[in-house]
Amino acid sequence: MKQHPIELLINKADTAINQEDFNTLTDIYADDAVLVIQPGMNAVGKEQIRKAFEGIASHFEHTLDVRQTGMKILETGDTALVLAKTLVSAKGHPLQERKATYVFRKDANGVWFCVIDNSYGHDLLDA
Amino acid sequence: MKQHPIELLINKADTAINQEDFNTLTDIYADDAVLVIQPGMNAVGKEQIRKAFEGIASHFEHTLDVRQTGMKILETGDTALVLAKTLVSAKGHPLQERKATYVFRKDANGVWFCVIDNSYGHDLLDA
Repeated sequence: MKQHPIELLINKADTAINQEDFNTLTDIYADDAVLVIQPGMNAVGKEQIRKAFEGIASHFEHTLDVRQTGMKILETGDTALVLAKTLVSAKGHPLQERKATYVFRKDANGVWFCVIDNSYGHDLLDA
Repeated sequence: MKQHPIELLINKADTAINQEDFNTLTDIYADDAVLVIQPGMNAVGKEQIRKAFEGIASHFEHTLDVRQTGMKILETGDTALVLAKTLVSAKGHPLQERKATYVFRKDANGVWFCVIDNSYGHDLLDA
């Protein structure tokens, strides 16, 4: 089955995170995108998002591995909601499964960009 | 604390659902909005959404009561992601707590509309 362009972008983002290729990674985010770094702490815009991922890579001593094990895309017009199961692993840290929630927007050229990246999903409400 | 306009809209939608005021309810949705009726079954556009809510009201024998018990809004530019805990009760049915996920878009006049309404959250992935 042909993959949805957003699924391809999320796979590209995961590879970029794991390889610490921050140029490829930040290209996937809209200029005003919001990334939840941890509950209560957000990065806004490409520069803050880049710094956040650099910090995360360092925190996990460059052993971070992120991948999606399930995904559902709800799309209408130029807006899409992605519900994903995300596995986060790193040396010396317990394996985490997160219920991630992403919002993508399509620009005038038909290219999707991530505008909201909340890998914690509803855990934000309990934080 | 001043309530976010989206929080006021969601409260208005809940009251409209409970009172079966489908005109007020469908006004809150964008023209191309998607509503997840149940996992695997979506309504698209105001007319389908109205019919879906009419069917839901009938299914619950006009005793449906929906309310949010917690909410978190992540917003950037004209897009917002809402994570909510939603209580659904009705006579003769067990009380359900859902982890709902909504996406709202702001139009050129600054008015927010619901574009994606998925009260089932990540349960869609297990369906």
